Amino acid sequence: MDSIDADGPRRVTAAEVAALAGVSVGTVSKALSGRGAVRHDTRSRILDAAAELGYRAPHAEPIRTGYGSTGALGVIIEDHFGRLTVPVLQGAIEVLDELDLALLLVDGRGDAIREQHFADALVRRAVDGILVVGAGVYPREPIRGDLPLPVVYALSASTREGDQSVTTDDASGARIAARHLVATGRRRLTFISGPQRDAASMVRLASTRAVLAEHGLDLVHDPLFGHWTEAWGRQAALQLLHSNVEFDAVVCGSDQIARGVLEALRENDVAVPSRVAVTGFDNWDVMVEASRPPLTTVDMSLTDVGRLAARTLVRAVAGDRTPGIQLVDCQLVPRESTAVG
Amino acid sequence: MDSIDADGPRRVTAAEVAALAGVSVGTVSKALSGRGAVRHDTRSRILDAAAELGYRAPHAEPIRTGYGSTGALGVIIEDHFGRLTVPVLQGAIEVLDELDLALLLVDGRGDAIREQHFADALVRRAVDGILVVGAGVYPREPIRGDLPLPVVYALSASTREGDQSVTTDDASGARIAARHLVATGRRRLTFISGPQRDAASMVRLASTRAVLAEHGLDLVHDPLFGHWTEAWGRQAALQLLHSNVEFDAVVCGSDQIARGVLEALRENDVAVPSRVAVTGFDNWDVMVEASRPPLTTVDMSLTDVGRLAARTLVRAVAGDRTPGIQLVDCQLVPRESTAVG
Repeated sequence: MDSIDADGPRRVTAAEVAALAGVSVGTVSKALSGRGAVRHDTRSRILDAAAELGYRAPHAEPIRTGYGSTGALGVIIEDHFGRLTVPVLQGAIEVLDELDLALLLVDGRGDAIREQHFADALVRRAVDGILVVGAGVYPREPIRGDLPLPVVYALSASTREGDQSVTTDDASGARIAARHLVATGRRRLTFISGPQRDAASMVRLASTRAVLAEHGLDLVHDPLFGHWTEAWGRQAALQLLHSNVEFDAVVCGSDQIARGVLEALRENDVAVPSRVAVTGFDNWDVMVEASRPPLTTVDMSLTDVGRLAARTLVRAVAGDRTPGIQLVDCQLVPRESTAVG
Repeated sequence: MDSIDADGPRRVTAAEVAALAGVSVGTVSKALSGRGAVRHDTRSRILDAAAELGYRAPHAEPIRTGYGSTGALGVIIEDHFGRLTVPVLQGAIEVLDELDLALLLVDGRGDAIREQHFADALVRRAVDGILVVGAGVYPREPIRGDLPLPVVYALSASTREGDQSVTTDDASGARIAARHLVATGRRRLTFISGPQRDAASMVRLASTRAVLAEHGLDLVHDPLFGHWTEAWGRQAALQLLHSNVEFDAVVCGSDQIARGVLEALRENDVAVPSRVAVTGFDNWDVMVEASRPPLTTVDMSLTDVGRLAARTLVRAVAGDRTPGIQLVDCQLVPRESTAVG
């Protein structure tokens, strides 16, 4: 595994890293300088190879020495332990436990002043870096103040250029759900999500429409925005049923909404999946498994986001502070609600 | 608030603590010595008064100095971030943040060897004490090894006499649900829970039966044990309906089971609450609110368990290591599924 102060006895070359990672020297250079686009999994493979060989890029800063390495990292959770926060935290703690790094946890409760207070307290405790775990997939303001140590944002990416963030590729998630529906023969899609002001609603809507446009299609009913609840899913589905618009699929912004939709369709004798297919978003076990039928959904790979964010922070402490937002791909999880035939 | 190294300029007396807490000197003595039963809320009031006045009981050990106070506490979670773990952790972090104590978090994953490894690592990091947060309401083996610092168990109480634990009063929770049903006129109760081997199932069954016995009643159908899932709730409810036993209430071991029961009753045109009342256990927001009708349930006060466990650990670090299990009362949360008239 990587180590905070790994430094080989002799200088390892970029060519050796490229050979081990199975890529070109140019790609190694791009990945380690952060100049130019490299897929996160390729970048990850290169960084793993670099860590294994003890490679240090020529431009890398020396290890921060102002506070002395304590082998401890601070974690600020944005707002209690939200449902999305927990798997990210779980991935991060997994990596830090493996590296024998201590994790100091504080709860910012979504309050900028509390966050700044705790960040200062973590600096006083001489942590080597800070991980900020967001409560949802939306951009956020960076922690206030000029912190003298690396900070990585997980889930909610920082809006400040030059910061390091890791989040889920929400847009790709919505695209794979829409592509799955089109590929399985659905043509008359509808869309139900949470509040229109939420970034997650708008990103998922735009991706759904983009996929439909590729096939010369559009939604057959105006998108419906409401709450992230089952009750809203039921209500919105009834609205679709009473609209007299023919539809053969409902793309939902969350598993909870999808579960409500499934319930309303069942109670109105609309067969799923034979007449209408339904997709969710989240892959929340208790929702997708209790749904009738079980729900096809999108998994945001949140534990992977946490793992990658922790590794990124460890590398930042070691000197690699390549700025930008790293995106982790979402995964389609097909179940009966979109089955064919 | 209490402070790890609070020590008044002059010796405060037990009488002053008693006056502030509004109890007798004898009760103060019982609460601070741990000899004799004192309700946890009374004990808590006394300990708050003692902390406020800077009182140190004559028998209290001096503050541990072997490692020097670092103002940091270790938290070992038993098994990832379970649904019950999270609110306990949230309560604990709330108290520790207020006291400006750092929290070092590790995940034991329910593995005794991992736990011992992390406990040793926390000792090396010179934490002042360790909080062990369980994944469920069941007794657990203590952390292996002889740790040279105070350890408090939250949610899963330690089986070792002399240890300090804080958990929810599961039995009281089941009693208040059963009493609520009897008080609202139900006489023909049935019981559906998770696996029979789980302590939570057996404790809740025993309490339900004890309340019925107080009224010369018993369950009208053998208790049904299965899984902690909605699917099992549906299946068990169908079993009751096909048994031809008349029943007017279903006591469920969890909200998920209760939600499945409600769904099966609705689909079989059994009116809730007019014909049959249903109770859950957990007060899990997404379950109770999406249930139709909304579910009467028992709240295990898990955030309070976390808060009290953190305070108990802070007091243990300061020298008060009164052994035993402190129980936090559950609360009835009445909703429509048991409404009368």
